[in-house]
Amino acid sequence: MSLISVGTVAFDAIETPMGKTDKIVGGACTYIGLAASFFTKNSGIVAVVGDDFPESVLKGLSERGINLDGLQIKEGEKSFFWSGKYHTNMNVRDTLDTQLNVLESFDPIIPESYKNAEYVMLGNLTPSVQSTVLDRLASKPKLVVLDTMNFWMDIALDDLKKVLNSVDVLTINDEEARQLSGEYSLVNAAKVIAEMGPRYLIIKKGEHGALLFGDGKIFSAPALPLAEVFDPTGAGDTFAGGFIGYLAESGDLSFENMKRAIIAGSALASFTVEKFGTERLMNLTREEIDNRIQQFVELSQFDMNLVFG
Amino acid sequence: MSLISVGTVAFDAIETPMGKTDKIVGGACTYIGLAASFFTKNSGIVAVVGDDFPESVLKGLSERGINLDGLQIKEGEKSFFWSGKYHTNMNVRDTLDTQLNVLESFDPIIPESYKNAEYVMLGNLTPSVQSTVLDRLASKPKLVVLDTMNFWMDIALDDLKKVLNSVDVLTINDEEARQLSGEYSLVNAAKVIAEMGPRYLIIKKGEHGALLFGDGKIFSAPALPLAEVFDPTGAGDTFAGGFIGYLAESGDLSFENMKRAIIAGSALASFTVEKFGTERLMNLTREEIDNRIQQFVELSQFDMNLVFG
Repeated sequence: MSLISVGTVAFDAIETPMGKTDKIVGGACTYIGLAASFFTKNSGIVAVVGDDFPESVLKGLSERGINLDGLQIKEGEKSFFWSGKYHTNMNVRDTLDTQLNVLESFDPIIPESYKNAEYVMLGNLTPSVQSTVLDRLASKPKLVVLDTMNFWMDIALDDLKKVLNSVDVLTINDEEARQLSGEYSLVNAAKVIAEMGPRYLIIKKGEHGALLFGDGKIFSAPALPLAEVFDPTGAGDTFAGGFIGYLAESGDLSFENMKRAIIAGSALASFTVEKFGTERLMNLTREEIDNRIQQFVELSQFDMNLVFG
Repeated sequence: MSLISVGTVAFDAIETPMGKTDKIVGGACTYIGLAASFFTKNSGIVAVVGDDFPESVLKGLSERGINLDGLQIKEGEKSFFWSGKYHTNMNVRDTLDTQLNVLESFDPIIPESYKNAEYVMLGNLTPSVQSTVLDRLASKPKLVVLDTMNFWMDIALDDLKKVLNSVDVLTINDEEARQLSGEYSLVNAAKVIAEMGPRYLIIKKGEHGALLFGDGKIFSAPALPLAEVFDPTGAGDTFAGGFIGYLAESGDLSFENMKRAIIAGSALASFTVEKFGTERLMNLTREEIDNRIQQFVELSQFDMNLVFG
């Protein structure tokens, strides 16, 4: 297996200014797996669901080339459930309900075929579970990317710092970067966080794009301005999945290629927010992705040398 | 005269988390004029000061090639004064004091040599005064850029809408774009504002960069991540001055060249915030500007075609 991803495969119920859903399929690992599958067909997921999770969805993931040997299905138990409501400013959301269910006792199983994975995506989850996944690998991956959130900084900071020590790339948002580092300036925050372990820091800024810090360089990626954001759920996970999927497929870990991977992840995330849940990703074509990436090129590229000077 | 700029030439007293100043030289037109002077030596300003304004500063502007024939000096009166305090989030500021003084009865005088200016920068000021400047020109300029703020949307919206009708480029921040258009999405806001007159809209997003909308296209310019923002006062004016100065000097109003002008303006603005007031602009070299523009290139440019696909 080239790439393995760990995270939730779950149900969400979402309310945004654009509408409301019943229980739909969600979960960080679902978005990560789907996004990565557009770039690499050699990936698997480490996750747990209850017996209430629809077989048809698992079949859909499998058909996209996502290996499910690392997915545990717990008989007689229920899948993780999250319910939330977004405000007009889609950066702000209230959690209405969280039911851990199968996650309460999640002990990740790593199939033999996963144990020498070169690329590992640790999706947003309890930091101690993220650590356990790394501990159970047979060899050191080429690249470990970790996504987390303020919640874990609040209640499990020591565990988070422990796993960060074994991570190459950390993805968090700007407020989380400030919280984790104690620095307001993102430039200074990146320096503090680099000393915690991750050589690269990606700061996700939603409608303002993303920043990559590392190798003494900075890359600023734009976000595509959208007329309508339908549902931001899963955008960060989609971004991370596209990012690591692109790197896994190209096998190039240079800063220049990380830039491309960030654009690829950003392009995928810009689709996810167009519909509720995973709907848009499930119906996405390679041609649409290529066109969207071209839009990112037109959005941000300029040629200063033609006239200036 | 190729370029004329109208706006305040004034005193500021500023407090930021980094320190505090006594009365120092400020004013939108001061920053605009200084910024534009790095690109064009054929510019003049339309403004008013009292007899308290230091001659040495006027001499400094003049030495940079800024024509002062349109600057009125009112004997026995005082210059405009603004005092403000910024919080840790430099996007938020409190106005502590505003003394209009000479601005209360500002009747802009346009010298004969200014009346056929091809480029006109209407800096942040009473919309009716911005209108008057346009009314007093002898010929229609090639490009009129207008900067304004929420204050004028609150108290002089009709006057603002009137002048917008004769404007080619509007520069405002994201919250102001939302207020002026009544649309939350900036894509939709841009459409509404285009119908008010300006063919191009530049949305200034501070630490998140800037967006240019026009000709059915969008350009997203990054902001340079800075370890330390000393004082954001004048950053937007510097940006606008660099933008129109670059266009005036190149004479190219294509969308591609507007992108370059935005990068040029962004580069200059990134210097302004490094020190209090106009200090950094006053001591800036062309080599520093070129290096800074190169930093913007490295920050945002990528080559998607090398590996992708």
